[in-house]
Amino acid sequence: MVTINENYQKLPGSYLFSEIARRVAAYSEANPAKRLIRLGIGDVTRPLVPAVTQAMHQAVDEMATVTGFHGYGPEQGYAFLREAIAKEDYQARGADIAPDEIFVSDGAKSDCGNIGDIFGVDNVVAVCDPVYPVYVDTNAMAGRAGHYDGDKGRWDRLVYMPCVAENGFSPDIPSQPVDLIYLCFPNNPTGAVATRAQLQAWVDHANATGAVILFDSAYEAFITDPAIPHSIFEIPGAKTCAIEFRSFSKTAGFTGTRCAYTVIPKDLVRGGVALNGMWLRRQCTKFNGAPYVVQRGAAAVYTPEGRAQVRETIGYYLNNARVIREGLAGAGLTVCGGENSPYVWARTPDGLDSWAFFDRLLQQANVVTTPGAGFGPSGEGYIRLTAFGGAEDTVEAVERIKAIL
Amino acid sequence: MVTINENYQKLPGSYLFSEIARRVAAYSEANPAKRLIRLGIGDVTRPLVPAVTQAMHQAVDEMATVTGFHGYGPEQGYAFLREAIAKEDYQARGADIAPDEIFVSDGAKSDCGNIGDIFGVDNVVAVCDPVYPVYVDTNAMAGRAGHYDGDKGRWDRLVYMPCVAENGFSPDIPSQPVDLIYLCFPNNPTGAVATRAQLQAWVDHANATGAVILFDSAYEAFITDPAIPHSIFEIPGAKTCAIEFRSFSKTAGFTGTRCAYTVIPKDLVRGGVALNGMWLRRQCTKFNGAPYVVQRGAAAVYTPEGRAQVRETIGYYLNNARVIREGLAGAGLTVCGGENSPYVWARTPDGLDSWAFFDRLLQQANVVTTPGAGFGPSGEGYIRLTAFGGAEDTVEAVERIKAIL
Repeated sequence: MVTINENYQKLPGSYLFSEIARRVAAYSEANPAKRLIRLGIGDVTRPLVPAVTQAMHQAVDEMATVTGFHGYGPEQGYAFLREAIAKEDYQARGADIAPDEIFVSDGAKSDCGNIGDIFGVDNVVAVCDPVYPVYVDTNAMAGRAGHYDGDKGRWDRLVYMPCVAENGFSPDIPSQPVDLIYLCFPNNPTGAVATRAQLQAWVDHANATGAVILFDSAYEAFITDPAIPHSIFEIPGAKTCAIEFRSFSKTAGFTGTRCAYTVIPKDLVRGGVALNGMWLRRQCTKFNGAPYVVQRGAAAVYTPEGRAQVRETIGYYLNNARVIREGLAGAGLTVCGGENSPYVWARTPDGLDSWAFFDRLLQQANVVTTPGAGFGPSGEGYIRLTAFGGAEDTVEAVERIKAIL
Repeated sequence: MVTINENYQKLPGSYLFSEIARRVAAYSEANPAKRLIRLGIGDVTRPLVPAVTQAMHQAVDEMATVTGFHGYGPEQGYAFLREAIAKEDYQARGADIAPDEIFVSDGAKSDCGNIGDIFGVDNVVAVCDPVYPVYVDTNAMAGRAGHYDGDKGRWDRLVYMPCVAENGFSPDIPSQPVDLIYLCFPNNPTGAVATRAQLQAWVDHANATGAVILFDSAYEAFITDPAIPHSIFEIPGAKTCAIEFRSFSKTAGFTGTRCAYTVIPKDLVRGGVALNGMWLRRQCTKFNGAPYVVQRGAAAVYTPEGRAQVRETIGYYLNNARVIREGLAGAGLTVCGGENSPYVWARTPDGLDSWAFFDRLLQQANVVTTPGAGFGPSGEGYIRLTAFGGAEDTVEAVERIKAIL
């Protein structure tokens, strides 16, 4: 008789987005004439840029010919893409990363989820609170999170690192021993960034304790401040203690096109084993590479035209972020993020809890946001707004919110 | 201090294909004037068909517009594709499979590897011998295979089911209890197929014991005999004991385009839990769907034009398979497969072992094959040839082999 992975039974329901959908549907049904504007969405809305679609068209044409056809590609990605990434995203920033330390994949969600395969189940995992739920749920599935306490909204084997106004939304280094440390900067959901000194402290801590930092920099393209590092590998010592996840999803609008990459330096060794080799073995055994057509599209992001076009799209979203941030701050709300990030994290007014403020914005302003409590207990008292909507809608949403505050 | 997944340390090297590459490179270097023909390759070589590339071009054009842009899609695949699969691949064959029992992915290798996530580590796994190495290696990584005995070429916790001439390359049902049973028909590497009666026996066994059959039908498009089932779900009772893996890789030349699907019926319950729901949770947490452009290409396979074009490509490969099978049989070799499969499994002559015959074909006929021993101990004494090459090369390769036998 087959046994199932019992850890799945411990997972709470995906409460957040289903509950948002339920409340939005109920409101819409009762108020069919109201036009809702959605600033809760974490998905991009601008089209793929011309350099990318031209490269994809050309690649599709190649696939239609005997001589240009591409079958199985390298599991870790084509050299043309890995070389462009190494040169443009790392070496150009002084980070000494080689193409064979880069693994192209179908998405950062896949990589963040699958990376656990190469680690022992006994590792103690530290996550920020609030946090992107994938880090938590995938570790729970693997048995690293222990048991879930529904009242506290916490797993008993995870170490939670609060990111709150008191610490500037920058987590403190845990006082107890931890092994796998998930960090995400620019942060989802708070929009906070990490300074060079803050990241250096994490790297030094990990090297001193033997921990591994799992660094998610999916939103690095939104960094405007030249003093803020885009990669953990800009920090001395990171190559012996960190893995980085990157994605074309937010950089180039690839949420429906699917391409990302993970960087594992060859110097990263634990238990006497190079993690680069373990991940190569994992990917060669359980993955067959991202589509050729998609990798050609991703590589076009690094051409001069692609770079300029993508920068323009990022600028469009950053302008939305500015509108939200300045508008809400002008209306008296305390806000974080939105300067080097597509996310604005706003304190609820009048001591309202997340869901109460969500409801008020939905019902009075007809604007959909995301309640911060859905990202973890320390998200209580906040809402997340995103800059990925249309520019006109964003302006109107902010005007509506200001009008009711 | 981080611990690694120690199971990775137990894996033997990927000996087979690196050793083939080494021997081929050494021969080529010593004999630069010789033109090698590769019939060892498991990858397709014919271009994507026009219906598919047209659909992909159209989808790329959509992605270039604000109104046609697609961001995150459903993790389990777009309804347009799942509905086409349910109707054309299942309901049209009398298999009552609904769209929400289908999970579209980036590849059968991913699905075959990742499916282990939802099962307990204690399950006893049965595999055919010879076998597609992914089933074995992914279970070894998860800790289900026990320890590897290099002398025997076996893992001590796996149950091996020999597929040899004596049983017509059809595995016998194991006498000891097993939980997860991997079956692949048409088989890689032997090219054998399973009759309706044989599959019924497996289904009855699994239902009687509570085992789950993991059925890989990646090569079903090559079935020409109308009496041979294409899906395990054509067999009564399969919906309570089987999961099926399918791919567009060999059906429509998608090895570099990446699209596949897994079927988990809602009636499949173990430990009181529906595996369909577990897999949905797994995919929603660790995967973000196959690219929109690729799913549009895959859906075009089900149009009348796409169907006719794909059938023509399959016919091209099946003709190669016939050339190999008849040629080798005519030269006195005992062969299996090649009628309902792109693979021909040939007994070595003169009691040669797999590698010795491989070397003889390489050096005397300048034809690259795959030694059967690389697929498992019971593959010793066989070689695998594939029908995925060019038609002219295949004819010439067979002539060369006949000339030296």
